[in-house]
Amino acid sequence: MADSKYKSAGVDIDAAMDAVNRMTPAVGATYTDAVLSGTGSFGGLYSLDGQTQNPVLVASIDGVGTKVKLAAQLNRWHGIGHDIVNHCTNDILVQNAKPIFFMDYIATSKLRPEQVADVVTGIAEACKAVNCALLAGETAEMPGVYAEGAFDVVGAIVGLVNREHILPLKDAMQAGDLLFGLPSSGPHTNGFTLIRSAISEKNLDMPLSDRRTLGEALLAPHRSYMREVDSLDVAGAHLLGLAHITGGGLVDNVPRILPEHLTARIDIASWDAPELFRLLVDWAELTGDEPYRVFNMGVGMVLVVPEDEVSQVCEILPEAFQIGELIERYADKARVQLVQ
Amino acid sequence: MADSKYKSAGVDIDAAMDAVNRMTPAVGATYTDAVLSGTGSFGGLYSLDGQTQNPVLVASIDGVGTKVKLAAQLNRWHGIGHDIVNHCTNDILVQNAKPIFFMDYIATSKLRPEQVADVVTGIAEACKAVNCALLAGETAEMPGVYAEGAFDVVGAIVGLVNREHILPLKDAMQAGDLLFGLPSSGPHTNGFTLIRSAISEKNLDMPLSDRRTLGEALLAPHRSYMREVDSLDVAGAHLLGLAHITGGGLVDNVPRILPEHLTARIDIASWDAPELFRLLVDWAELTGDEPYRVFNMGVGMVLVVPEDEVSQVCEILPEAFQIGELIERYADKARVQLVQ
Repeated sequence: MADSKYKSAGVDIDAAMDAVNRMTPAVGATYTDAVLSGTGSFGGLYSLDGQTQNPVLVASIDGVGTKVKLAAQLNRWHGIGHDIVNHCTNDILVQNAKPIFFMDYIATSKLRPEQVADVVTGIAEACKAVNCALLAGETAEMPGVYAEGAFDVVGAIVGLVNREHILPLKDAMQAGDLLFGLPSSGPHTNGFTLIRSAISEKNLDMPLSDRRTLGEALLAPHRSYMREVDSLDVAGAHLLGLAHITGGGLVDNVPRILPEHLTARIDIASWDAPELFRLLVDWAELTGDEPYRVFNMGVGMVLVVPEDEVSQVCEILPEAFQIGELIERYADKARVQLVQ
Repeated sequence: MADSKYKSAGVDIDAAMDAVNRMTPAVGATYTDAVLSGTGSFGGLYSLDGQTQNPVLVASIDGVGTKVKLAAQLNRWHGIGHDIVNHCTNDILVQNAKPIFFMDYIATSKLRPEQVADVVTGIAEACKAVNCALLAGETAEMPGVYAEGAFDVVGAIVGLVNREHILPLKDAMQAGDLLFGLPSSGPHTNGFTLIRSAISEKNLDMPLSDRRTLGEALLAPHRSYMREVDSLDVAGAHLLGLAHITGGGLVDNVPRILPEHLTARIDIASWDAPELFRLLVDWAELTGDEPYRVFNMGVGMVLVVPEDEVSQVCEILPEAFQIGELIERYADKARVQLVQ
């Protein structure tokens, strides 16, 4: 339905897709070969011929939350497309799945074609970047359901993994395994209800020390970690787990991949939280562990690395930094300890 | 994320799922065996081991539109869960795919646990009925994006088909092939913006001749045609195509499965539109082809049947009724002709 729906919304999806094709020519073979039918038919068709052994599908659905409110305020929509694709990509990447196709749903009180085109162009670009087909989509105009001018963007992703390669390997984790972080590009898509309250009296044009404005820094698209995970795969580096740091921060997301008998000991002095987070924590008057529950604080993805793989991981991913280690967990102790 | 999100919304998803399991014990083996990981992990895992030959995934995403407004007005949410699953199921069924898993997204201005539980219970029941795993889900509370008390429900479905069995078979269609309809259960999930305007001064408690109230009839859940298509499969009856009659009605949906050289000649006198549609057409003052663009008018699914399969189809599906036939299409003629 998507094709006709985009058209009925006045969006020239073909032109948008053509533009994206011109912008990002480096598309893997699976993108075109596997897609038997695109956005025109009732459902999108994706062939699994010649794909991985022991195939397991990994799927996730999510929205970008109230970051859309800030996008509306600044009338900048393009990054929201990258946000939703990369958020979903990271959510299945942590199980070692590679995205094969993505579907989007965009709904608002009153469809504005140029706004939908901006979001969809961003989605298409981000899909190409992770070699994922944009297989289906839907736009809906629902006055009375959405507030005047408001907008929601939902994404559903499906990826594929060989059953033998699914992460995390909880049984293989042990005390002494190391935790590494990969930098985030900003708050990604989490904490925006609090952020909007914290910045309500701030000027979004305020410059940060890296010359970006506050508004630009807040809207920086959610980063995908697909290339980093791919590089490790190609080099044969063996991770024990990956945790995508989304809502709930390090405190809630790291335990999700750990066995019951281990605690993540995270040294929050081991990296400098970027300026934007320091400002937000200050403005929102967050204390104690709160910043590490609300925000990613500069760490978008956590890797669990056995000691003998550390040098290889650091060589392949020079931006990775150690943030802690796994220790034995005693009885009723927390599953994450923040120390400094 | 779904599990924790449901829990943070105060929904006891385990209890809801247990309740559903008790209600619908007849679950196929694939439901439990293929799901390696449910709603607790970052992404849901679905194994393709031992599934069909030449596997092609068929995927679709959709919402239930402004039917949610009427559900809110009557505070009846359970059917909305059935609506979204069955709508999505039918959208991939027309390509001869059987659903393997479903994902839901529920967003509102202010999460009310009992409301979310009602919708999710409906979704889980409907998934079971079509032997489809509820693999992932997300709930979002977005004040300021959604109007006070408003609600949106989005579903994404993935199904599987053997590449050799994909419908429609446009190349095999010819003049003389017959069109059969299967009854809808009501307006399904289409036309509700118009419906709400048409009934704005009507009493939703008004009884129809079948003793249901107007409100009940309007909220009757979208029907799935999976059992009917399955029965035909099992009997070895060969269809040439299936069209799910959604937004755009018979006029827009039937042409989507036809080759360029054929027109669907539909005799609208060949069935009686149910009372509810007659009332809506009257109240909304629709004329000419309009009712057949806005509503399904009692026909939820159209089957393209070659002449030599007709007796078998009628025997297996006694409720199917002939609504027309395919004829040669001349030059600039319409792709659907409504006659009476």
